[in-house]
Amino acid sequence: MARQLFELAGADPARLFSPYCWRIRMALAHKGLPFESVVWHLTQKDVLRPHRSEKVPVLVDGETSVSDSWAIANYLEDTYSDRPSLFGGAGGRAMARMLNSWSDVMVGQIAPFILADIHAQLAPEDQDYFRYSREKATGTTLEQARTGREERVANLRRWLHPLRMTLRSQPFVGGAAPNYADYIMFGPFQWARVTSPFELLAADDPIHAWRETMLDAFDGMARGTPLAGRS
Amino acid sequence: MARQLFELAGADPARLFSPYCWRIRMALAHKGLPFESVVWHLTQKDVLRPHRSEKVPVLVDGETSVSDSWAIANYLEDTYSDRPSLFGGAGGRAMARMLNSWSDVMVGQIAPFILADIHAQLAPEDQDYFRYSREKATGTTLEQARTGREERVANLRRWLHPLRMTLRSQPFVGGAAPNYADYIMFGPFQWARVTSPFELLAADDPIHAWRETMLDAFDGMARGTPLAGRS
Repeated sequence: MARQLFELAGADPARLFSPYCWRIRMALAHKGLPFESVVWHLTQKDVLRPHRSEKVPVLVDGETSVSDSWAIANYLEDTYSDRPSLFGGAGGRAMARMLNSWSDVMVGQIAPFILADIHAQLAPEDQDYFRYSREKATGTTLEQARTGREERVANLRRWLHPLRMTLRSQPFVGGAAPNYADYIMFGPFQWARVTSPFELLAADDPIHAWRETMLDAFDGMARGTPLAGRS
Repeated sequence: MARQLFELAGADPARLFSPYCWRIRMALAHKGLPFESVVWHLTQKDVLRPHRSEKVPVLVDGETSVSDSWAIANYLEDTYSDRPSLFGGAGGRAMARMLNSWSDVMVGQIAPFILADIHAQLAPEDQDYFRYSREKATGTTLEQARTGREERVANLRRWLHPLRMTLRSQPFVGGAAPNYADYIMFGPFQWARVTSPFELLAADDPIHAWRETMLDAFDGMARGTPLAGRS
């Protein structure tokens, strides 16, 4: 197939878990563009070298390679402008930039709770690299980082309040129907859901209900991913 | 004049300081719509009763009264759709909802640092009400709330990181030129600037440079407001 998406997976190649890859997986489905998923592991830097990237997602679309989720989303919007819009116009594209930044910070807010669980489900050859790089970046061990997470998750839930307020006012971040703003926000939740049994959200949180809807989108594409630590 | 904006002021009626009123003041300028500013004080609930509101901003546009900054922005966009757009399309309007929620939370993040300074510049008849209601809501005195603000402002600056990342990527939250997304974000900064000498931002912060640009917008409309605690 002429269109390929390089995506991060765990030891189980079906367990796709990168928050950034999930943004693009959903964006491709939104545009109705079929693609071949190419499983990638963290230490396979060589594989991406021809595409001038060290990280996924990388989209190869015919002769074109694009890396970085924000660049890929913009490429898809511009190249397939006759298909359903990801941004809903120029204003949406600009404002999605800030939502994207907020979601990137969200990844850092969630990370301490789940890094040890991510480690446990990685491909064996990725585990040492992951532990070394993450412990160096955070200045703590993966196991220490999650200490007291049952109590500390209250801070995350407070931090998420702007998203909660939005979803009390309208069905999706993108308005009446989901668009890239929703895929931006969904990525970190899917990352956590696929890699860790730890529940980030209270059952009565409007964000929880929205996440359920996102899991059902595109014929349950995200719901079908195998989960770590659960049968 | 047929168009009036009720705006919160301090003891000096020229010192307009509500973050929500500033959103609308900028939105009206963006649309090129002249208006008469009606100075309002916190305890003048009676004045707003004919407009079915207890808070400002309230926009009176001919026969129509609209309260709540989000509702007013949407009213302006729909009613004056032939004028420069506030949202840049349907996607921008939806995503601005979340930026609006984030900015509302920002008001709460900034409040502890400046509430005592706000109190000092209020109209005398507003001071008791302000102190009572804010101390009840926060569970602390206005003076205690600002204790150690020189150190604690580092937390606010970290919290603002999504806005900083955005302004490193593009000139305005709304893209190449300011739109309502920028007025949403500017409101809390102008609120703090007008009421308190305490500086929220480091001089080399991209948010600082953006704020300067916003102060220059519309012939320096926001820069012209008299500042408390400074001559």
